[in-house]
Amino acid sequence: MNSIKNDLLLKTIQGDFTQRPPVWLMRQAGRILPQYRKIRNSLSGFKELVQTPDLLAEVTVQPVDELGVDAAILFSDILVIPEAMGLDYELIEKKGPSFPVTIKSKADVDRLLSGAAAAEKLGYVYDGIDHTKKALEDRVPLIGFAGAPWTLLAYMIEGGGSKTFAQAKKFLYQENVAAHELLNKITETTIAYLKLKIKHGCNVIQVFDSWAGLLGPTLYAEFAIPYIKRICKAIDEVPIIVFSKGAWFAINDIARLSCDVVGLDWNFNPANARAAFGNDLVFQGNLDPCCLYAPEAVIVEKTEEMLKAFGRNHIANLGHGVYPDTPLDNVKVFVNTVKNYRYAGKS
Amino acid sequence: MNSIKNDLLLKTIQGDFTQRPPVWLMRQAGRILPQYRKIRNSLSGFKELVQTPDLLAEVTVQPVDELGVDAAILFSDILVIPEAMGLDYELIEKKGPSFPVTIKSKADVDRLLSGAAAAEKLGYVYDGIDHTKKALEDRVPLIGFAGAPWTLLAYMIEGGGSKTFAQAKKFLYQENVAAHELLNKITETTIAYLKLKIKHGCNVIQVFDSWAGLLGPTLYAEFAIPYIKRICKAIDEVPIIVFSKGAWFAINDIARLSCDVVGLDWNFNPANARAAFGNDLVFQGNLDPCCLYAPEAVIVEKTEEMLKAFGRNHIANLGHGVYPDTPLDNVKVFVNTVKNYRYAGKS
Repeated sequence: MNSIKNDLLLKTIQGDFTQRPPVWLMRQAGRILPQYRKIRNSLSGFKELVQTPDLLAEVTVQPVDELGVDAAILFSDILVIPEAMGLDYELIEKKGPSFPVTIKSKADVDRLLSGAAAAEKLGYVYDGIDHTKKALEDRVPLIGFAGAPWTLLAYMIEGGGSKTFAQAKKFLYQENVAAHELLNKITETTIAYLKLKIKHGCNVIQVFDSWAGLLGPTLYAEFAIPYIKRICKAIDEVPIIVFSKGAWFAINDIARLSCDVVGLDWNFNPANARAAFGNDLVFQGNLDPCCLYAPEAVIVEKTEEMLKAFGRNHIANLGHGVYPDTPLDNVKVFVNTVKNYRYAGKS
Repeated sequence: MNSIKNDLLLKTIQGDFTQRPPVWLMRQAGRILPQYRKIRNSLSGFKELVQTPDLLAEVTVQPVDELGVDAAILFSDILVIPEAMGLDYELIEKKGPSFPVTIKSKADVDRLLSGAAAAEKLGYVYDGIDHTKKALEDRVPLIGFAGAPWTLLAYMIEGGGSKTFAQAKKFLYQENVAAHELLNKITETTIAYLKLKIKHGCNVIQVFDSWAGLLGPTLYAEFAIPYIKRICKAIDEVPIIVFSKGAWFAINDIARLSCDVVGLDWNFNPANARAAFGNDLVFQGNLDPCCLYAPEAVIVEKTEEMLKAFGRNHIANLGHGVYPDTPLDNVKVFVNTVKNYRYAGKS
């Protein structure tokens, strides 16, 4: 059915026989690449890049050319969704995202756009996919992504990055009805958005719940899982990867979602994850991003250890986005170690 | 043996019969109290408070008077240890700690003071304990604390707070020998320091591994557990509590340390922790600090749920330090809910 030349990622997700795991890196389109930095430095800001279809296509394809990874991931930002809903954000260099206006009450939530009406505002993303598909020429699958509803709510309430997201969590405790309404609106928008991304050519979807670990089991069960579940159920056109960073306490619930791949951060011991969930669940991850600062021999050793421990049904990746100051040569050692690896035995 | 009037904390740690769990809060001596803010605002900085024995005694006792908690914890900072070793720190309002000079190489580590020679530099802490003991009049036990070696190394390399502590982790991957030497020196200093704290009257010790969750299982096993273990073995005069925030993946190792109490953050489901470790292990924690933003009825409900799930052999606390903007009345609701609670059945 698919015309992707290197379909190792799709085969792995389907449970087909492969000789090695596919490999890509979260944040592979970014500061680790000199060709990215060149484009980025020629622009006024990060948002200009996110909103310029031919440029975002160019930086999306760069890691496929430079690193030889088995998938491209569309260059974008999870905060395009709040913006489409009516909440503008800025990206301040070395400080991160910032919302000049935040959500403070149910009335603020009521005013937000949602669903198809919001998703339609993101024409530059869909144009970017069109450009990317042309440039990729079906060499590898294209991954599209979205933030999970809780993580997006966290930014919309808090107004920016935070160690604790205490204001966002306060909203969950104090404004139960408004919080659920906001999560509903984000979820509806995200589903419409992802369906349009798929229509324009994304072959796989990843949902990032970056701040999952700030909630405990009770809050996560109430405010996160049901909304991710709705997204997973709604997206039946292509496989979906769920990466809930830090949500070890909810890993049973996540594994039971109708998602195709469970992303793991580097806190997980791969052998223990296999022991708990069996050999059939497809995991993605999970080398410590800081391991790519190590000498070459250590990167090779730790990567091979991880590959052996996960065995088949595994997508090799880091346990978080690659850090921007990671030496490019070390990233290549990681990618090539996976590409040179062969599973023992026959299918 | 002890002359402490309210010895609920000590009895609980010893496994004696009690009618309810003891309760105290991490960071109870701090911004939640108006009487603390008054003293703090009259000073030039946080460090002046840490270094002035009669004032630190005063703020240490304030929560005992105001909240009626079952323990005092000596007001101080984990960064007094790096300072005693020769690495000065500053505390910048709303920004956190900052080290003008950081550790970059083995030569830097070699130059650091350690053990008794470093611990002796902290006379103001021991004087502070003397003042505190006088002011407390043995009403409740006094907890003394230290940072775990990995967390202190993290600050000494990184030079300040960080979301990833990537520079500190890079040091672990690139400078194995120097990292272990530094951890050794921190450990020796911490042991000498804690022994002096106990000599001056601390009845319980807590070790805070605040950045435990940034390491994965492999790094934590190599760079954290062995040093915490040495501290636990060396401190045999009084009970010791180990709180490794985020280190769920190492909880088996932590429970096997010769420590008396295992602190849990709010990611843990108390019933699951009991199921995994049995009813005899003494846990401390673990209400979500943000739950204290909730309406009174929710605080009572969630606190009682937690108390029931842990059952006996439990020290009630939050799963992290109380956040500075928590309403004082809500803190009192939490404390009083615990104090009004009674275990079902007989001993």
